[in-house]
Amino acid sequence: MTGEFQIIRDYFQRPVESDELRVGIGDDGAVLRPREGYDQVVVTDTLVEGRHFPAGFAAEDIGWRALAVNLSDIAAMGAVPRFAFLNLTLPIAEHEWLSAFARGFFALAEPSGVTLAGGDTTQGPLSLTVTVFGDVDENKAVLRNGAKPGDRICVSGSLGDAAAGLEILLRGASSENVLVSRFRKPEPRLALGRNLAGTASAAIDISDGLMADLGHILEASGVGARVELSSLPISSALADYSERAPDYALAGGDDYELCFCLSAKKLAELRAMDNACDITCIGEVTSERDLVILDNNGNHYQPSRRSWEHFMEWSK
Amino acid sequence: MTGEFQIIRDYFQRPVESDELRVGIGDDGAVLRPREGYDQVVVTDTLVEGRHFPAGFAAEDIGWRALAVNLSDIAAMGAVPRFAFLNLTLPIAEHEWLSAFARGFFALAEPSGVTLAGGDTTQGPLSLTVTVFGDVDENKAVLRNGAKPGDRICVSGSLGDAAAGLEILLRGASSENVLVSRFRKPEPRLALGRNLAGTASAAIDISDGLMADLGHILEASGVGARVELSSLPISSALADYSERAPDYALAGGDDYELCFCLSAKKLAELRAMDNACDITCIGEVTSERDLVILDNNGNHYQPSRRSWEHFMEWSK
Repeated sequence: MTGEFQIIRDYFQRPVESDELRVGIGDDGAVLRPREGYDQVVVTDTLVEGRHFPAGFAAEDIGWRALAVNLSDIAAMGAVPRFAFLNLTLPIAEHEWLSAFARGFFALAEPSGVTLAGGDTTQGPLSLTVTVFGDVDENKAVLRNGAKPGDRICVSGSLGDAAAGLEILLRGASSENVLVSRFRKPEPRLALGRNLAGTASAAIDISDGLMADLGHILEASGVGARVELSSLPISSALADYSERAPDYALAGGDDYELCFCLSAKKLAELRAMDNACDITCIGEVTSERDLVILDNNGNHYQPSRRSWEHFMEWSK
Repeated sequence: MTGEFQIIRDYFQRPVESDELRVGIGDDGAVLRPREGYDQVVVTDTLVEGRHFPAGFAAEDIGWRALAVNLSDIAAMGAVPRFAFLNLTLPIAEHEWLSAFARGFFALAEPSGVTLAGGDTTQGPLSLTVTVFGDVDENKAVLRNGAKPGDRICVSGSLGDAAAGLEILLRGASSENVLVSRFRKPEPRLALGRNLAGTASAAIDISDGLMADLGHILEASGVGARVELSSLPISSALADYSERAPDYALAGGDDYELCFCLSAKKLAELRAMDNACDITCIGEVTSERDLVILDNNGNHYQPSRRSWEHFMEWSK
């Protein structure tokens, strides 16, 4: 049987000590030397099989996803990711699974500039906790509570694809579909995220659905919002998939796009920067503490699908 | 049903922002401002029901234990704990369980100077990941790889109690027993730990058993050791419990005492400091890369019980 220490050596230990990572994997803990002039952003997310990904999800995709959802939080704070810790709980230690998992994890870690600095490996029902540290200029972290009436509300990329992809996946369809890929391999918006520091008044990543996550910004900021249904960025794949595409865009989780607020002036500055994804303005922050969705006729719109929290069952 | 955000607000969110914790629980992540002149030690451990604690273990004890095992790692690095992150996976969100869990967690966090800065709550088989950040003077973290031939080998407290306590617990006996208490509520050796920075050449906490954990120091340092059976610190409770008490002391896990190496001169300095627990010198580091246990007659001794790794089954 493969032991805990052997797993770490075989799959996860890479020679990476640096001035900032004084001690990496292999001791009781890691030793970091934080850089002066920066605040440190720390995010952590746990993924449980059957809740955050379906049973039997490919190991490579799990490795990617566990890191991606955390990098998405780092991006939403306006930070640059530096170090990750991985706590992996596995029913059995199997070579093929571990190799594929590590391949998926490092396929995202390496281009993102993330060094694996430590973690833990244990036996139990499949679940993973990843913790990521990022740097942001002092006092520049983008929080949820800074949105002001009159701010534009923007989102990156397209919305609703991942929720449709999960539906397709749960029906057992091929994984070649572009919507399924959006669920399987979320792309954290790191390039955009670092440009939000000092630009956006508030930001969040869309993991539970636009309405739920924008709702967190509004609640924390003590404001409301008016969103135009016609302005939601919907991919042609999603439009082809369902006549109710806007409902997926409003309430579907797992897109890991960014939703952020900023003044019209800052939006112009942001658009002039070099970003890796499209930005769409979908509405405006209001002083009435209410989230209003307006359809093409200016009427209030309610999506048929609710957003979900992680204590709710998987959609069936 | 209680949702994820409600659980955090009700049980874990406390008003604690400070100069060093700029943003705590409630945003996408926490924002820390690390103190200048210190290295940052980061430790993380996952506990799974049925593996690291028996099914049905009291919620209060789980809360204490999840933090204690991490503080023990912080102590073994010579650091002072500052912030913790808690990732809690629960089958159901039940008021009584959560209250008791939080009570146990904060009962240790508060006197230890630890602020809960973030985490995650999700549904699934009971398991917890705790990540703790500590401060240590620059370049003073105590690692596993610094032991030198001639160094004294010391341990804190008494050894083997927790392994005996777990046996008793698994037989269903009362929890009033002192050995059971050692398993239920390990006391991380924080006061001793911070004195090891700049004093000890190597240190580790004893989670898997003295032989296994001292073995990690020896392997990392490229040295061996000679340990005197008669010098092992054995409590009267353990001596009363079993004629094979030394085997529990050598191979029993879960004591969370510290094992460390240092020169005779540094040992004298350490003994002059104000420590919160007893220190026993149990042997000496040697240049032969072998761990030798000597009995009262000077013969090599082998315990009947092996140490355990977390990928082995619970002892039955």
